[in-house]
Amino acid sequence: VFNKVALFGVGLIGGSFALTLKKAGAVARVVGFDRSGASLARARELGIIDSIAVTVADAVRDADLVLLAAPVAQTESILASLAPHLQASTVVTDCGSTKADVVAAARRALGEKIGQFVPGHPIAGRESNGPDAAIDHLFGGKKVVLTPLAENSAQAVDCVASAWTQCGAIIHKLSAEQHDLVFAAVSHLPHLLAYALVDDIANKPHADLLFQYAASGFRDFTRIAGSSPEMWRDISLANRTALLDELDAYMVQLGRLRVSLAAGDGPALEAVYANAQKARHDWIRTIEASER
Amino acid sequence: VFNKVALFGVGLIGGSFALTLKKAGAVARVVGFDRSGASLARARELGIIDSIAVTVADAVRDADLVLLAAPVAQTESILASLAPHLQASTVVTDCGSTKADVVAAARRALGEKIGQFVPGHPIAGRESNGPDAAIDHLFGGKKVVLTPLAENSAQAVDCVASAWTQCGAIIHKLSAEQHDLVFAAVSHLPHLLAYALVDDIANKPHADLLFQYAASGFRDFTRIAGSSPEMWRDISLANRTALLDELDAYMVQLGRLRVSLAAGDGPALEAVYANAQKARHDWIRTIEASER
Repeated sequence: VFNKVALFGVGLIGGSFALTLKKAGAVARVVGFDRSGASLARARELGIIDSIAVTVADAVRDADLVLLAAPVAQTESILASLAPHLQASTVVTDCGSTKADVVAAARRALGEKIGQFVPGHPIAGRESNGPDAAIDHLFGGKKVVLTPLAENSAQAVDCVASAWTQCGAIIHKLSAEQHDLVFAAVSHLPHLLAYALVDDIANKPHADLLFQYAASGFRDFTRIAGSSPEMWRDISLANRTALLDELDAYMVQLGRLRVSLAAGDGPALEAVYANAQKARHDWIRTIEASER
Repeated sequence: VFNKVALFGVGLIGGSFALTLKKAGAVARVVGFDRSGASLARARELGIIDSIAVTVADAVRDADLVLLAAPVAQTESILASLAPHLQASTVVTDCGSTKADVVAAARRALGEKIGQFVPGHPIAGRESNGPDAAIDHLFGGKKVVLTPLAENSAQAVDCVASAWTQCGAIIHKLSAEQHDLVFAAVSHLPHLLAYALVDDIANKPHADLLFQYAASGFRDFTRIAGSSPEMWRDISLANRTALLDELDAYMVQLGRLRVSLAAGDGPALEAVYANAQKARHDWIRTIEASER
């Protein structure tokens, strides 16, 4: 049980974390800090936080755990602001979608206190944002990837893992570099591709005609292009190197398919399509088996 | 009301068409013809068809309407087989996802009877196939695109339009060339892109690690890569020219994004992402308004 958890950011992720820990009886007191006074007031109304911290020092004082759940671009400035007030017994973690850049920012901001920072990434989300979107079961059965640092003590890592486990999440551990390579392939590239397709179509002179006939397949394919442009700009830039590698590999793949298509090579096209269908089918079956 | 409808192909599309017309009391008798004896027997058990035609001549004789709902690669051979038996009062239509190639095949197969063939494409589907997947409400509120020929009489076009309207569908008309350009952009290219991504990931040495962290965004983005490889090979080849044009435009778009990403040009990335998000949002809002 945590005596005090401090949330920096009281929206969907931070709010759901607090609500879930409270429901589990795993936290005595949650204090919130946010750039938005309206979000703080709403989070208090909703029972996400018990009190609003007026200063960063107030937020951090005597906290067992600090969760950063603000936009990832604010990570370094938040960490820098709380560093002077960080007691040795406090562990800090974050929720950013990229990790190598967060680790670099944390090293700059925290200096010799870096061992108190355990980087994390909960793989969960919803279409909506803000305190009103927070729910007490967002993380059940979802993965949380921790990318522990050499400087982290086992207790610090266990502290963060325990909080997420009590939220019903499943803990995975990767290095920050592995994490970023993996998510470049299965998340960041697909977002870029979906945005690229919708923008491409929207810029055509006959875009209205095209959108008129787009159906459910297009809707699913482009759902992730409904995500926040600012957030995905930041993720794309933060994970630029790995994303460029994945994009290059994908463009080579498209070039190969183009050759097959231009040559009318049915067997070559079918081989790619069939391999993809089978791989996706196997993947879905594995997911469904693990959820059972 | 149709006295006799002949189905070539008694699976999801043909079966749903028959069940819906029957429910609406719009057809007296449905006769089925299919390469698969098992499908025919099952379609009869399910009440999709009233009788199994032993020969093509039996299927077509005295039919008001013939619906081709077999794999599109069979279109020309089916049309060639029924052409000698086609009475002047019978109208023929199809359900193919591409139209220019179907029209060319129909011209070869039907010769001077081409005026009796009204090309069509119902924009509807389900995950599953075969007679057991057929339902009596697959087409409600869905679009059916007809691409009438200069040789079609108004009555022939009205006959096909009336059948689909009685299935609850909304009739749109395009030229075969327009149809193929539109669907290359909003359907055929996304399928190719989704297959390409899954195949690309599946072929990486660390594919298992990658798939382990793929989540709901990846699942939606790649849903269409679960489609039939044979069917999409045929569609890709049938609409090769338009698909190559769309693929080339998309690769240019990816090349531009690559430049922005490599240069760390946040505003350029955000402009594309934001334009895409807005266009998709407007599109969804239009769909939802039209469904209300």
